[in-house]
Amino acid sequence: MSDKITLFEAFKQTTYPLPGHGPRNIQVLKEALEHADGNMDSDMYGKGKVIEDFQEQMAKLLGKDSAVFFPSGTMAQQIALRIWCDQKGLKKVAYHPLCHLEIHEEDGLKELHHIEPILLADSNRLITLEDIQNMQEDIACLLLELPQREIGGQLPAYSELEAISAYCRDKGIKLHLDGARLFEILPFYQKSAAEVCALFDSVYISFYKGLGGITGAILAGDVDFTAESKVWKRRHGGDLISLYPYIISSDYYFRGRVDKMGQYYEAAKELAGMMNECHRVATLPIEPVSNMFHLHFEVPKEKLEPILIAIYEATGLGITGYLKEINETSCSCEISIGDRYANIPKETLQSAFQMLDEKMRAMI
Amino acid sequence: MSDKITLFEAFKQTTYPLPGHGPRNIQVLKEALEHADGNMDSDMYGKGKVIEDFQEQMAKLLGKDSAVFFPSGTMAQQIALRIWCDQKGLKKVAYHPLCHLEIHEEDGLKELHHIEPILLADSNRLITLEDIQNMQEDIACLLLELPQREIGGQLPAYSELEAISAYCRDKGIKLHLDGARLFEILPFYQKSAAEVCALFDSVYISFYKGLGGITGAILAGDVDFTAESKVWKRRHGGDLISLYPYIISSDYYFRGRVDKMGQYYEAAKELAGMMNECHRVATLPIEPVSNMFHLHFEVPKEKLEPILIAIYEATGLGITGYLKEINETSCSCEISIGDRYANIPKETLQSAFQMLDEKMRAMI
Repeated sequence: MSDKITLFEAFKQTTYPLPGHGPRNIQVLKEALEHADGNMDSDMYGKGKVIEDFQEQMAKLLGKDSAVFFPSGTMAQQIALRIWCDQKGLKKVAYHPLCHLEIHEEDGLKELHHIEPILLADSNRLITLEDIQNMQEDIACLLLELPQREIGGQLPAYSELEAISAYCRDKGIKLHLDGARLFEILPFYQKSAAEVCALFDSVYISFYKGLGGITGAILAGDVDFTAESKVWKRRHGGDLISLYPYIISSDYYFRGRVDKMGQYYEAAKELAGMMNECHRVATLPIEPVSNMFHLHFEVPKEKLEPILIAIYEATGLGITGYLKEINETSCSCEISIGDRYANIPKETLQSAFQMLDEKMRAMI
Repeated sequence: MSDKITLFEAFKQTTYPLPGHGPRNIQVLKEALEHADGNMDSDMYGKGKVIEDFQEQMAKLLGKDSAVFFPSGTMAQQIALRIWCDQKGLKKVAYHPLCHLEIHEEDGLKELHHIEPILLADSNRLITLEDIQNMQEDIACLLLELPQREIGGQLPAYSELEAISAYCRDKGIKLHLDGARLFEILPFYQKSAAEVCALFDSVYISFYKGLGGITGAILAGDVDFTAESKVWKRRHGGDLISLYPYIISSDYYFRGRVDKMGQYYEAAKELAGMMNECHRVATLPIEPVSNMFHLHFEVPKEKLEPILIAIYEATGLGITGYLKEINETSCSCEISIGDRYANIPKETLQSAFQMLDEKMRAMI
């Protein structure tokens, strides 16, 4: 039977899926709404208590003057870069080669805003201060993504971050934070959100990664910056008459999970340790610095799939529903720890990884 | 006491507000969700049953090959015009001077897409076939808004619409429908949505005007057009991981209200008749052609406000919460009929408009 089922289907049928908080289904919204007062007025095109209160709360948390709720980070970040480019009269920015704007947004930054990005560092490592110092061209803004998701969620040392911030300030380069997973990295840095954000001129955060909301983003900065971002939000078609379904759920899951980031981080380290003991398996980074990491297998994707399916069926643990082919001899997947991990029996984890190790050793 | 309260506050306190379906509060979403299965999977970046089923249903209804759900009409319509401009290699379109894109979108079409609009007709009348024939320049696309909201929701004769469509097809001009209120005009035209849409190359419809949903829009056209619109949707930041809160509510209120458009239209005509019997009061158009019309008062705004507040307090009827100053001697408001109208006692309407007539006659 097993050889007929796809990895994704087998994963969906497991009793203990490893990543995330739970299924992304409509119950996620239902639960958030159960705690909301039906008589509360909708926001109206960016105005009203439900949106203004949340924006104010987030601005305070991030230590910025002002914050604006956006339907997506794609919209918020393009707009942030556009504002800094317009202010400097220079349509050039810099970011990592695997930045979300470069690989996941159909080139919106170039096609809609005609901004030219300079790609810093190699794809497989973090941007360093040296990369920035060695740039040949002037730029309006540097975007840093913390953690750098596409290389397993790596982070620079905090001292390097401070040095980058000081350098940019000195050179008149605006520093923007892609903080889609900002709360996830605070336990590692042992800093508050406001402390990290103080290094940046503008900040984007997301509510559906580690926080597990439905969708939605906050863009924060000074008052002139956020005022201009609202004009661009309307131009993009994001100034919806009602954003409250996303605001209420963002608020609800933020409150429920922001204090659990330390727990997720510890779980990620524990899990990575177990995985790294398996033959031909390694996590990136070896020791996670947030709730996420990548899992690399020195096995071709098509050979690993039946092994994983067998493990899922035998133990009930679901590691991933999707493998990415790296090359002919290796593949990988992303693991993000959320609420689910704490409910998985330790014996299930042990027997699953023992089985993985045995099967990997048995391969020629 | 009355002279201390604003028109908006007085309106909010009335027992029988005239326009719309009900308060725009969070209960609107709660009600729609009560009928949704919590186990249903979220859509994921434009894929999944919840979004695909709804898109298919709307494409069929509109008689188009394909349809795409968008968070907003602002996003959908800029993208429609961009696609037609790119196809023709000509960044010029034409629309009415009071088109939504011209007056409500912070010039997104110009700032993001660098498309130049040619304004047809005068602000206070509909675009005619003659206006189009007399255009000096070639354009890629003509946008028609049916009904033309900012002039009271007026409509051209259906034969004129057919003639415009034939002319555009002949001249290689794409015809796009701003159908934010498409379902609202079908009772007047006595046509199906698909019959009206057959005159157009691309169509946008909205779910929060007469249908009373939360937000959301559909853009429909041929397969190549909608495929390209998905790329631009991602560039705009509108390809959200989850649009289901808007899709489920759009679907729910669409099903509940699409067959009531005839009832709203008849009510609008009845109401306009009562209003037109009042001194210094006239509706635009005199006889409505949909569920909406504008109400013009030959009285300065600041003199009318206390009169309306007195009527609201005496009769419990709320006509409007907002008056727009036209000039020093006149003002206006928009009326859209929805579910609320049927619940207003006829005596309340009669006594309110009798009082309005008397107070308007008593003015010097």
